[in-house]
Amino acid sequence: MSGVNLKKLSEELGLSISSVSKALRDSYEISAETKKRVLEMAEKLNYQPNPFARGLRKRKSITIAVVIPEIANNFFSVAIDGIQLIAQQKGYHVLTYLTHEDAQSEESTVKHLQGGRVDGVLISLCGDSASVGHLLSLNESGVPIVFFDRVPETRECPTVTTDDFESGFKATEHLLHAGCKRIAYLRVRGHLSTSQKRMDGYLAALKKNKLHADPKMIVDCTNENMSNVELLKKLLKLKNRPDGIFASVEKLAISTYYACNEIKLKIPEQLKIISFSNLRTASLLSPSLSTITQPAFEIGKESATLLFQMIEKKNFNNRIEQVVLKSDLIERNSSKRK
Amino acid sequence: MSGVNLKKLSEELGLSISSVSKALRDSYEISAETKKRVLEMAEKLNYQPNPFARGLRKRKSITIAVVIPEIANNFFSVAIDGIQLIAQQKGYHVLTYLTHEDAQSEESTVKHLQGGRVDGVLISLCGDSASVGHLLSLNESGVPIVFFDRVPETRECPTVTTDDFESGFKATEHLLHAGCKRIAYLRVRGHLSTSQKRMDGYLAALKKNKLHADPKMIVDCTNENMSNVELLKKLLKLKNRPDGIFASVEKLAISTYYACNEIKLKIPEQLKIISFSNLRTASLLSPSLSTITQPAFEIGKESATLLFQMIEKKNFNNRIEQVVLKSDLIERNSSKRK
Repeated sequence: MSGVNLKKLSEELGLSISSVSKALRDSYEISAETKKRVLEMAEKLNYQPNPFARGLRKRKSITIAVVIPEIANNFFSVAIDGIQLIAQQKGYHVLTYLTHEDAQSEESTVKHLQGGRVDGVLISLCGDSASVGHLLSLNESGVPIVFFDRVPETRECPTVTTDDFESGFKATEHLLHAGCKRIAYLRVRGHLSTSQKRMDGYLAALKKNKLHADPKMIVDCTNENMSNVELLKKLLKLKNRPDGIFASVEKLAISTYYACNEIKLKIPEQLKIISFSNLRTASLLSPSLSTITQPAFEIGKESATLLFQMIEKKNFNNRIEQVVLKSDLIERNSSKRK
Repeated sequence: MSGVNLKKLSEELGLSISSVSKALRDSYEISAETKKRVLEMAEKLNYQPNPFARGLRKRKSITIAVVIPEIANNFFSVAIDGIQLIAQQKGYHVLTYLTHEDAQSEESTVKHLQGGRVDGVLISLCGDSASVGHLLSLNESGVPIVFFDRVPETRECPTVTTDDFESGFKATEHLLHAGCKRIAYLRVRGHLSTSQKRMDGYLAALKKNKLHADPKMIVDCTNENMSNVELLKKLLKLKNRPDGIFASVEKLAISTYYACNEIKLKIPEQLKIISFSNLRTASLLSPSLSTITQPAFEIGKESATLLFQMIEKKNFNNRIEQVVLKSDLIERNSSKRK
């Protein structure tokens, strides 16, 4: 703890602790002259009020929590950048928690946020989380929550997402226009809202183009690159193999590149790929990767802005705001027409 | 704040607040039977002690701060992953602050950490920070600090770094063995300890191989890709242009790839490149990028472990630990011999 507390300050000034405290709180009981002296000494000694004493007094922590599945991920790290920008402007501290796609870890994290540690929570659900009961209980205890990107499917709550259905639709049509006849949809096993909506877009595009949706072309992957590469090698060696891959998350596109390298399948000549991705090196890959790119920084900014609006209001549960931002389809060589 | 406080709990149990409080603190004044009743009710109502009351009582925040220049950076996001792992094991909360390479922002962040908000600080200095006075004052107020990767050059303090000199030496010799005669060293303007040590390694390797170190081949770049690309295009169009590039940070290798694409300079035939990098797609770039890869996850883990050792000791300033981890040189196509 800091060496300079109210006691030290009062000793230096030759004033009582209560007078110093009142001066710092700008009380009418203290003269302007004394206030000036106290403030100057506080500045000189670099006095910082104890945040726990202040937190207890004001019932505010000046802290928000960000709960995300992983941080070594281009989408989430850029989103946090946006969140931090707004938090900094508001003078708030940001606690970060990683759930590593584990529902139990998510639940115990959220439980620890009860009891006033934070004034609000931003969360992107882990793929594993089947229920949001733990979040509802936090919310009921008076802590506002904004969900971003991965949101509960079955509940009305404040969210910031992107146009996942529309983007899934466009990505699929893009591959069809490039000449693909048989497109596989790669997803990570679990309950991700994003994955479901992107797939709905994929299915709608197939339907519109009068193509049969083969359940074998909806491929459940894991979060682990090595096992995904093996799975994809098998898929791509099938007699009836796909000629297009739509990866619903970036890591699955990377695994597809590795698989193609290993079995010498040429992109885009023999297989076309498009992926949701915030990879900054997408244009430098061999071949450059066509992407659906989400406005990650904006998502972070919008989520934090919405959360602070809710923190500042008291009845934040009366009106639910849901923000949807547009993603960009960026055509590069991995999906080029022959 | 949570709806369930001591008052609510005592009402539900029909006990006094003070009895409930004593029962929760396992006081000898309370019977085993009553303690059991209180604990069961606390569990049932999901009672969470107010962290600010607890922080004030125990003079501990159960929180550490991580101060880094940027988060949308493969090295730092993986390092945070390692820090979070250890913090989670210790039951600690992690506040994250981004300085965006700005010394003033670093200083004001550190000032806010005074006064008991955190029990310890992990920091990687911003490129801009010329002095560490603000950190010394925090340390003197009783908060232990561990520096990782980017550390103060002129002071003995607890650090976790990698073998930057050795790696700089090896990277340069690697380019020389691949046939380079004129190697440029790219760095970001500023006071980075890492950049200085890597350059010392570069200079030592040139000297050992009896090569003249041309000051024009030590190139000061910025943190901004577009301006770096322009600067590198100029450099690579010189009559006496370099035939090898040693990038001291990842972003400068990326800028070099863009510059070469624009002026149609072939890597590795006309220019060889090696870079410090934690890029997960290094092997998928066109051509694949040779890297010096730091053990980012380990750096995070080691730094947090060291910090918790210091938090648990009282006289943490008596003995200074400095940990140095080894980086890996990974040869790929960007530095291949013709």
